[in-house]
Amino acid sequence: MSRFSQPQDPIFAQLNASISFDRRLAPYDVAQSRAHARMLERAGVLDEEELASLLGGLDSVQEELESGSFPFLPDDEDIHMAVERRLTEIVGAVGGKLHTARSRNDQVATDVALFTRDHAARTVADLRALQAAVLELAERHIDWPMPGYTHLQRAQPIYLAHHVLAYFWMFERDARRFEHVLEATALLPLGAGALAGVNFATDRRFVAEQLGFEGVMPNSVDAVSNRDFVLDYLAAATTCATHLSRLGAEIVLWSSEEFGFCEVSDAWASGSSIMPQKKNPDAAELLRAKAPRVAAHFAALAGVMHGLPLTYNKDMQEDKEHLFDAVDTLALCLAAARGMLTGISFRQERLAAAASDELIAATDVADLLVRRGVPFRQSHGVVAGLVREAVQSGRKLSELTREELERHSDALDGEFYEVLSQRSWLESKVSEGGTALARVREQLAYAHDKLAVAAAPARFNGDQSA
Amino acid sequence: MSRFSQPQDPIFAQLNASISFDRRLAPYDVAQSRAHARMLERAGVLDEEELASLLGGLDSVQEELESGSFPFLPDDEDIHMAVERRLTEIVGAVGGKLHTARSRNDQVATDVALFTRDHAARTVADLRALQAAVLELAERHIDWPMPGYTHLQRAQPIYLAHHVLAYFWMFERDARRFEHVLEATALLPLGAGALAGVNFATDRRFVAEQLGFEGVMPNSVDAVSNRDFVLDYLAAATTCATHLSRLGAEIVLWSSEEFGFCEVSDAWASGSSIMPQKKNPDAAELLRAKAPRVAAHFAALAGVMHGLPLTYNKDMQEDKEHLFDAVDTLALCLAAARGMLTGISFRQERLAAAASDELIAATDVADLLVRRGVPFRQSHGVVAGLVREAVQSGRKLSELTREELERHSDALDGEFYEVLSQRSWLESKVSEGGTALARVREQLAYAHDKLAVAAAPARFNGDQSA
Amino acid sequence: MSRFSQPQDPIFAQLNASISFDRRLAPYDVAQSRAHARMLERAGVLDEEELASLLGGLDSVQEELESGSFPFLPDDEDIHMAVERRLTEIVGAVGGKLHTARSRNDQVATDVALFTRDHAARTVADLRALQAAVLELAERHIDWPMPGYTHLQRAQPIYLAHHVLAYFWMFERDARRFEHVLEATALLPLGAGALAGVNFATDRRFVAEQLGFEGVMPNSVDAVSNRDFVLDYLAAATTCATHLSRLGAEIVLWSSEEFGFCEVSDAWASGSSIMPQKKNPDAAELLRAKAPRVAAHFAALAGVMHGLPLTYNKDMQEDKEHLFDAVDTLALCLAAARGMLTGISFRQERLAAAASDELIAATDVADLLVRRGVPFRQSHGVVAGLVREAVQSGRKLSELTREELERHSDALDGEFYEVLSQRSWLESKVSEGGTALARVREQLAYAHDKLAVAAAPARFNGDQSA
Amino acid sequence: MSRFSQPQDPIFAQLNASISFDRRLAPYDVAQSRAHARMLERAGVLDEEELASLLGGLDSVQEELESGSFPFLPDDEDIHMAVERRLTEIVGAVGGKLHTARSRNDQVATDVALFTRDHAARTVADLRALQAAVLELAERHIDWPMPGYTHLQRAQPIYLAHHVLAYFWMFERDARRFEHVLEATALLPLGAGALAGVNFATDRRFVAEQLGFEGVMPNSVDAVSNRDFVLDYLAAATTCATHLSRLGAEIVLWSSEEFGFCEVSDAWASGSSIMPQKKNPDAAELLRAKAPRVAAHFAALAGVMHGLPLTYNKDMQEDKEHLFDAVDTLALCLAAARGMLTGISFRQERLAAAASDELIAATDVADLLVRRGVPFRQSHGVVAGLVREAVQSGRKLSELTREELERHSDALDGEFYEVLSQRSWLESKVSEGGTALARVREQLAYAHDKLAVAAAPARFNGDQSA
Repeated sequence: MSRFSQPQDPIFAQLNASISFDRRLAPYDVAQSRAHARMLERAGVLDEEELASLLGGLDSVQEELESGSFPFLPDDEDIHMAVERRLTEIVGAVGGKLHTARSRNDQVATDVALFTRDHAARTVADLRALQAAVLELAERHIDWPMPGYTHLQRAQPIYLAHHVLAYFWMFERDARRFEHVLEATALLPLGAGALAGVNFATDRRFVAEQLGFEGVMPNSVDAVSNRDFVLDYLAAATTCATHLSRLGAEIVLWSSEEFGFCEVSDAWASGSSIMPQKKNPDAAELLRAKAPRVAAHFAALAGVMHGLPLTYNKDMQEDKEHLFDAVDTLALCLAAARGMLTGISFRQERLAAAASDELIAATDVADLLVRRGVPFRQSHGVVAGLVREAVQSGRKLSELTREELERHSDALDGEFYEVLSQRSWLESKVSEGGTALARVREQLAYAHDKLAVAAAPARFNGDQSA
Repeated sequence: MSRFSQPQDPIFAQLNASISFDRRLAPYDVAQSRAHARMLERAGVLDEEELASLLGGLDSVQEELESGSFPFLPDDEDIHMAVERRLTEIVGAVGGKLHTARSRNDQVATDVALFTRDHAARTVADLRALQAAVLELAERHIDWPMPGYTHLQRAQPIYLAHHVLAYFWMFERDARRFEHVLEATALLPLGAGALAGVNFATDRRFVAEQLGFEGVMPNSVDAVSNRDFVLDYLAAATTCATHLSRLGAEIVLWSSEEFGFCEVSDAWASGSSIMPQKKNPDAAELLRAKAPRVAAHFAALAGVMHGLPLTYNKDMQEDKEHLFDAVDTLALCLAAARGMLTGISFRQERLAAAASDELIAATDVADLLVRRGVPFRQSHGVVAGLVREAVQSGRKLSELTREELERHSDALDGEFYEVLSQRSWLESKVSEGGTALARVREQLAYAHDKLAVAAAPARFNGDQSA
Repeated sequence: MSRFSQPQDPIFAQLNASISFDRRLAPYDVAQSRAHARMLERAGVLDEEELASLLGGLDSVQEELESGSFPFLPDDEDIHMAVERRLTEIVGAVGGKLHTARSRNDQVATDVALFTRDHAARTVADLRALQAAVLELAERHIDWPMPGYTHLQRAQPIYLAHHVLAYFWMFERDARRFEHVLEATALLPLGAGALAGVNFATDRRFVAEQLGFEGVMPNSVDAVSNRDFVLDYLAAATTCATHLSRLGAEIVLWSSEEFGFCEVSDAWASGSSIMPQKKNPDAAELLRAKAPRVAAHFAALAGVMHGLPLTYNKDMQEDKEHLFDAVDTLALCLAAARGMLTGISFRQERLAAAASDELIAATDVADLLVRRGVPFRQSHGVVAGLVREAVQSGRKLSELTREELERHSDALDGEFYEVLSQRSWLESKVSEGGTALARVREQLAYAHDKLAVAAAPARFNGDQSA
Repeated sequence: MSRFSQPQDPIFAQLNASISFDRRLAPYDVAQSRAHARMLERAGVLDEEELASLLGGLDSVQEELESGSFPFLPDDEDIHMAVERRLTEIVGAVGGKLHTARSRNDQVATDVALFTRDHAARTVADLRALQAAVLELAERHIDWPMPGYTHLQRAQPIYLAHHVLAYFWMFERDARRFEHVLEATALLPLGAGALAGVNFATDRRFVAEQLGFEGVMPNSVDAVSNRDFVLDYLAAATTCATHLSRLGAEIVLWSSEEFGFCEVSDAWASGSSIMPQKKNPDAAELLRAKAPRVAAHFAALAGVMHGLPLTYNKDMQEDKEHLFDAVDTLALCLAAARGMLTGISFRQERLAAAASDELIAATDVADLLVRRGVPFRQSHGVVAGLVREAVQSGRKLSELTREELERHSDALDGEFYEVLSQRSWLESKVSEGGTALARVREQLAYAHDKLAVAAAPARFNGDQSA
């Protein structure tokens, strides 16, 4: 079949073959072959009988693939050749007609687009499920005070629900990003041929419709040169994995004896081979650890595409392993985050104790002065002076005397002690999006609405028209 | 103003200060201060006179910044402190009221969002201008044949316009990506305070409207922890820079004596310090070279955010230099690509000579056999045999004899020579998106339509309500 | 065995288990277990009989692993637990004594160090073999002129041998880098226990000697926190893969019809599924394509280690897949580069034709003027003028008339034509390291010497003392 | 001076010019020009008077550069041209002779090698100073118990000195890596000319000696194509920055109210614009934050070099900004780490309280059973059971009764309580490199020895022969 007179060197075959990983594209390859065959029949390239024969053969191929009985051969370089080879074994010479008006270049672009599209839809669904778990967690802890941190220093008290909901919105943005990936894979590459279009008046829009695409790529050169959509998936996955890494990092931190804010369930922890007392939050650590791996996949593929002349170059074979591992890593991490959060238990008293640290009411004392007409910048200075005095004398703020207060500002009076004692700091954060309970409830309702209208994107079903 | 008793160590000051780069945020900082002041007046925190005084002071600050007379001081740690400090110098103690109900945490998030939003809009506009140049180039060379390449081997002939238009669609997708960045920066962070919301019933939606945001971030913790939108810009920039690097790589290649397809104008080339004959396509090389730099900015910021506990951490100060350099690099590259393409000249005869290589008609010969009922896979094998025979005997395909043809397939006859000679290979690629001239014209029309409806996104004007 | 009352969640088990990839460490794990057991016996923790029993059991385990009959169980979380579990099945309760004075933390650090050490040695050997192939290639083409390029523009002629030898020196530096990796893995981690050392007076130096280490890590905390040596391997691999990518890129370029400088053998090329005439240099493309993958592994692991508090964190489990894939990718690429270069054929006439381009003698004409006392910068300007005149009038340099020459400089006379005609440009590059043939021969001799003294580093043999 | 008839487009000039950053190479450029001029005189290209004139002119140029009076012009594309242009203004036409037998290609490679070499030496010196600070810190806290952590869970107690010394060994390895960079820059590129060598019998070894190189690069093509040494610096810098990021992360963690292990001095902390009580460990956060930035520089340059055909390509101009920023970032971070550690104060009672957590003696209880003949794996299970019982009943281990102990193992007796109570767990870690005080003292002595013999590498002095 080739113009070559020498067989492939075994080392070259090993470097060149993609069958060990691209076999994963098999269902998409079979589906596109069905759609392509139907189109060829409409175009008059195949007759009805030939079409029936090919479709029957493709059914058999699919069954073999699904049951694991598909006979892969050492010479199968990639999944496209393997499917066509097997099809021809089953249906005879007519199998050789399937590759009419098609090239591996547009074929593989189409398979990868279908795969990406399908898994972007799946990732959206996984994110929705995780968001639901986050919402549920927030609702169960709606009024549990805890310290909010900046610079990992206690800053201002917030409700646990409010903190947890921050992740809801991160995942909301992530879902939006994967919806953009669906948009980025909305146009069918197939029909571009090797790079120039094909010698037949094919109906690409028919194929697009069959496979769930919204349209066709308008330029055949671009269609076979393009892997933007894989980069789009990987970029979205990087940001999503980074969100999960922040969540993981917080769970690790909060599980330390020093914080003691939460405990993952036994089902999500590991012991030590040597230290019998250990309960390690391994799942949280691994959520944290996976972000650089996903980011590296993006970096690698961007590196591969960098400086590549058009159109198809073999370098682009590198797209698949990066994509597959990112897809698998992300799916596992999203499921793990959901499972871990579902089983986690928080320690109300530890959180509350940390939240009642008087120093974190300092902003509120400053705002008290503002209400009495002191410019904020000046009131900030006054309270900083109070803090310094308290810290240096080893006392709490509330242990400063009236006289001491007055030395710092004559706008300070007994309400100072009330602000410190009444623990109303949380409820005073009444601005929209703030931690006051009414605002958190408002936010929860909004989050529920968001989730309710979030239609799960349709997943690929292998053959839309069947 | 601080609770500290020791001055900053000079090394620490050097590490900590961001004023050397974040001064670039000044116009956005002033604009948000205006909007914030107006809101404070509506909320009753400022009276009318105080507002007027602050707005007047902010006008002076802006003028000083624009004219370069703003007196930066060694102690100005960041642009926010510098602006407030200067404002207070100008308007007196009321300047200290401006920071009421605001923290540097939500302030800087807002400045960076405004900057990103503004430059995403600018990048879209730059892309539209480049697309127009690409279209113009395509139109000037609409029917110039050239070889299309796969694996950098001549594959099938195409029109230069068709090749060039591939870049139009890449840039179209890039523009779409930056429009997504606009969506990712549509919600205002300001009003989140340090992290928990503020102690005042502020009207965040009023501020949002003033500054051109579509809404407000629904969670104060998320608002100050989030830099997704910077990652979104950097990811979009990476893919865009990668497209430019492919364009640059092709111009470098085509400018070589061996290809000889084009020549950049003298205005876009460099000489050599030692070799007087050299004309180097430096601009094209630099377009190629910049993609890894932009990709590295994305990798770096994703790395910074990885595993960061909520909410604000000083690490996030690293967002700015990466963003600024990516913005500048991309703007320069887009302008350079446009300028270089505008002045480039192609060599019709070199392109045509390369395109008339008979071997690249091989697919068309195979398709001839398909039309005569030979399955494609079999016809591919027949033609591969012809090619081998021709190459091994040092002849062209058209120098094979009728007898030789018949030995390979009895479906081969005199039309074989016609297919090779008539040079109609380009025009036979009639499928949608193919290189046949009618299809290219259709594509050009479509591209024009796309560009015509592409409304330039509004850029930030410093103060929407002024 | 654990303090937990709930079984692992299956999703957690999937995320947490490393057995699917770390089984590759099995031979190193068995070897270190042998050495550890021997040490325990010397320390009095085991008696002679127990040692014999353990060693016998480890032999059985090794045989099972090598023959593929080792019974992995679903509950085997990692290779360390699997080996110990199986050992205990074979030898009974004494198997449980092997983990005395050892933790998985120092155990895995030791396995990974042994693996890295072993494969660094292997990479050095692979590089030496590739260098030999490069040398042989250079020798076969010692006096074949070709153009040297800067900016992908023909710059000055060189001998093919000289160009090819550039890669010899790149690989020489690569080998040196992997020798540094051997240095970076010279100290044994084992004996650090979980992190603090162990409760027994162990003899770590004895274990080190048994396993081929030069010493022991001086700090137990560092010993279990450290993965520098993996980063070292990955950094060296990145630079090496980048060298291979430059080689691959050149072969791709030179294999184009336009350059036509070389042709890879059929055993190292691929055809096209649709274009019967194609001969694609896929191996060269893949050499080019793999560098970003290896670089991404370095980036990913650096990302994982970034900001990790001491000592062991589960995140560090991510080290292995990056290392393993980098090792495999590099080994395959080095073998492929060697095979591809061995079978490649160059086209002397195409190279020579390109090298005889008169313009690339321009520097030599300038140097002729220098010899006549014209400052170089001025002579450069004179020749640039000549080139402009020739290019604009569509002539070669040698077609300029004496009168025209004199208009540009009175130092120009008939020797101008000699310089252009005599083709002695290559031989005039007589400086050390230059392309003059005598210098290339000198370089070849030096390269042979380098290779001759390059002792292959010892590879790990599983058990030094056996 | 050029063959071009059009001036540079301003956008191109902006993209192309490197003078805004490569002016930093000025001292190296002047030094190499001196050495080159001396060599030209020895080779007979310059006479004594010309040499004197050039050297005098170079002295003036250097003075202008050092005093800031050097007149940069808008047309100065790079530092090499600027220096030569200015030199010629000062000394007249003889300035034009300096570029004889030299090209910008070998010139810039030499400047960058000199710069890298110089800064690698500086980095080693900075690391030695930091190591001394670490040693001093360890000595001041030699017997302060603290918990050692794995998975951020308290694992086993160690001495603070032991933990801190882990960083000593990391920095030791870093210093070694930068010494390898010195080795990687030991050979002089100059004399390679544009790529092929030069038309003069130059004495490259004389130049090498003048500039402090150990030898000359053996292949001119490689000499101008190579940037390995920059990658080497960046890889070493990445690992070093990653170590600093781990240190920073630990200080951030330990500075939290929850850990409360240490407090940075006021001189190394920041306050909050809104929360008057805050003391943020910004320096530590920034140490943590900088590693991805440095890693990105390595990734970017590896990306630039990927797939670049030999020899010099303009893309390589990208090497400098990455290198310069990495050098500056690392120098600042090393100084900051040293300053921060010098001023930090630890809280002995907080550390001790955390270290006395009874659970972290679990390994020691297990080892007690081992000493009584119970295989380790079994004793680990026994103690895990004890821990479960204690945790579930809300008691400490020492509150378990004798009867409960016996239910778990008949090898448990009253010594169980002694092991828990005697707090001798630290001192039992007697293995080499362990935390027992004698071992830590041994380690300190070893560290002192290491530091004492670490000769500071010589720094570049601008002109070795002056």
